[in-house]
Amino acid sequence: MKIINGNVTTPKGFSASGVHSGLKKLKKDMAVIKSEKLCRAAGCFTTNIVKAAPVIYDMKTVKNPVLGVVINSGNANACTGEQGLRDAEKTAEIMAELCGCKGENILVASTGVIGVNMPMDIIEAGVKACYKGLGSDFESGEDAAEAIMTTDTFKKSVCVQIEIGGKTVTLAGMAKGSGMINPNMATMLCFITTDADISSEVLQKALSAAVIDSFNMISVDGDMSTNDTVVVLANGMAENPEIKEDTEEYNKFFEALFHINKTLAVKCAADGEGATKLIETHVYNAKTKKDARIMARSVVSSNLFKAAIFGSDANWGRALCAMGYSGADFEPDKVSLTFVSENGSIDVMKKGKPVVFDEDIAKRVLTAEKIIVEIDADCGQFEATAWGCDLTYDYVKINGDYRS
Amino acid sequence: MKIINGNVTTPKGFSASGVHSGLKKLKKDMAVIKSEKLCRAAGCFTTNIVKAAPVIYDMKTVKNPVLGVVINSGNANACTGEQGLRDAEKTAEIMAELCGCKGENILVASTGVIGVNMPMDIIEAGVKACYKGLGSDFESGEDAAEAIMTTDTFKKSVCVQIEIGGKTVTLAGMAKGSGMINPNMATMLCFITTDADISSEVLQKALSAAVIDSFNMISVDGDMSTNDTVVVLANGMAENPEIKEDTEEYNKFFEALFHINKTLAVKCAADGEGATKLIETHVYNAKTKKDARIMARSVVSSNLFKAAIFGSDANWGRALCAMGYSGADFEPDKVSLTFVSENGSIDVMKKGKPVVFDEDIAKRVLTAEKIIVEIDADCGQFEATAWGCDLTYDYVKINGDYRS
Repeated sequence: MKIINGNVTTPKGFSASGVHSGLKKLKKDMAVIKSEKLCRAAGCFTTNIVKAAPVIYDMKTVKNPVLGVVINSGNANACTGEQGLRDAEKTAEIMAELCGCKGENILVASTGVIGVNMPMDIIEAGVKACYKGLGSDFESGEDAAEAIMTTDTFKKSVCVQIEIGGKTVTLAGMAKGSGMINPNMATMLCFITTDADISSEVLQKALSAAVIDSFNMISVDGDMSTNDTVVVLANGMAENPEIKEDTEEYNKFFEALFHINKTLAVKCAADGEGATKLIETHVYNAKTKKDARIMARSVVSSNLFKAAIFGSDANWGRALCAMGYSGADFEPDKVSLTFVSENGSIDVMKKGKPVVFDEDIAKRVLTAEKIIVEIDADCGQFEATAWGCDLTYDYVKINGDYRS
Repeated sequence: MKIINGNVTTPKGFSASGVHSGLKKLKKDMAVIKSEKLCRAAGCFTTNIVKAAPVIYDMKTVKNPVLGVVINSGNANACTGEQGLRDAEKTAEIMAELCGCKGENILVASTGVIGVNMPMDIIEAGVKACYKGLGSDFESGEDAAEAIMTTDTFKKSVCVQIEIGGKTVTLAGMAKGSGMINPNMATMLCFITTDADISSEVLQKALSAAVIDSFNMISVDGDMSTNDTVVVLANGMAENPEIKEDTEEYNKFFEALFHINKTLAVKCAADGEGATKLIETHVYNAKTKKDARIMARSVVSSNLFKAAIFGSDANWGRALCAMGYSGADFEPDKVSLTFVSENGSIDVMKKGKPVVFDEDIAKRVLTAEKIIVEIDADCGQFEATAWGCDLTYDYVKINGDYRS
């Protein structure tokens, strides 16, 4: 697997664009991705009972051959009733007419404020501007990645190449994250393009598996969104022999797809609303894989622990406490805990007992942009990693007055 | 039921005190409550797997006749291994020796920093000073309520009287809350005294029932503590006929006990770390009682919603979103939502559809110290109320550097 400098337009046959349509005051707010040929598609969506209209629409549409996707930021089209569903369909139809396909071949995705109906005149003009601006160059892909941002502070793209049957297969993805980010899919939108030849069923299997230890292991604020969407489009233009289940090629493809997912998920955690630090929690020697995942996620989700990391305060008790209420099965008396960063490492708990440590060294370790929490549960052989961010004044500021 | 101006020393035969022992720099940090006669006791404790030493000790000891309780703030005696357990026992023994009873008749409770062993010389001197200072006057009860505070900004006491069999029975309680507060018992300590004559079994039954819709319905930050404790001591000195299960007298006693629990729980929510507003969420017409409780709690626990309330922003979509990921069963298309405060009320969602509302009126409604969120689920006949607080800069400040 080769990591290259690319984005969603890098795989063969994909073009993209991003424009300012007027949903937001000044910033880019609409994007499209389009393939030359119809794609096999797969998707993973929010498990929130309250699903935004585009999620309801995509869950059905992703089973069809897909030519492209229309994405807007600034309005989530969530809690918008029957009108919201009609607006999602209408958006797809506007794009379909331009592309010469059917509405059922176009996916839509939205992120932004909840509970406001879509201004369809702006959307229509936006889709047309996006279509007109489509390009398969690097810059067009970057424009799209920029247009899907809400409170994100940087664009999130990743691209990798693998060899399958003598052909170069490229996978690329872009994502937006920031707020309402929580395990099991949050206001997180992720779009992955690939020129791989692979069936919808196998693609869905690979995506569902890849999401578990990537997007489902990040948390920014514990709020699971109404709009979470990860979609992958595969147009087959790499002309590789079709990737079948349970083969070496599948494993290669999965590894690449997982890299895309994990890289974008970690970027979303690092760019959590107001975040100044990325927190990576690594639990090992847990009784089961599930226990390891639950404990790792519970620690990166704890407000108290996140606030302590913001203050570079080695308040490790809050991590153990979060493991304790997570529902995971473990023995507190066996746990050891170490903080690690580029500034060094420090043991703070050993086999359930506090370690007397140098506060100055702890402060130095925790004054880094990436803090790793190593947790040895010492009661089994399973491990898991979760990612989150610190809780800061700016998180409160951003969310105290998001709509204005 | 008569609400009177009293505290834990108001019921017959109880004395209390609160002193500065040196666990904290300047503030009062140790308290004791003592009864003239051995009491029937009952308790509810944290469900966190990681239980502080005093919780492990009390869960066993609460089944014995109890003469008093020693409480310290400043150190939680949690994650302190075997030594922590020995320290909890030793604390009880020091008090027992002064009182002329056995260690097994004394409860202990701690709150504060996790993972630091107790400075037993300070504890010993503190217990002795507390014992010496014991008084049954109002001020002594207030001293005790003050000494158990951590980041609390005000003392929390409540007292009520009922008539049973021609005798006046008094119940009073004090609590500390503030951080690490979450449903199912959080760093919340609550001590209730009563002169009622009631068996341990019936007392435990009443307490367990009273906690469900009071302390288990509040959330400050979603972090469930290692130390949560609610204890009630009944010394029988009101000389009422013993309260039996399933009688009118039991109902009267339960109502009084529930009032104590609810009042203190709401005070803990209102005094959440950094809080500027109390949020009360009232869900009605839910399919089951459990669904109503889960939805109400999920809304007051949502960081995004809490931050919106801090900013007086009527971002009601976040409330619906929190209901959606709560796990409760409901139909989003039927939900209606209204914000109510002393400044008026405003409908923001009606039968699943957004209501166009006046932002200025919404702002005025939300600029109050108590915000009520009325949620009509319209799919059943059960209701529940939960309490929480807004998420503010000060929450982050307090928790970013708690230990220093």
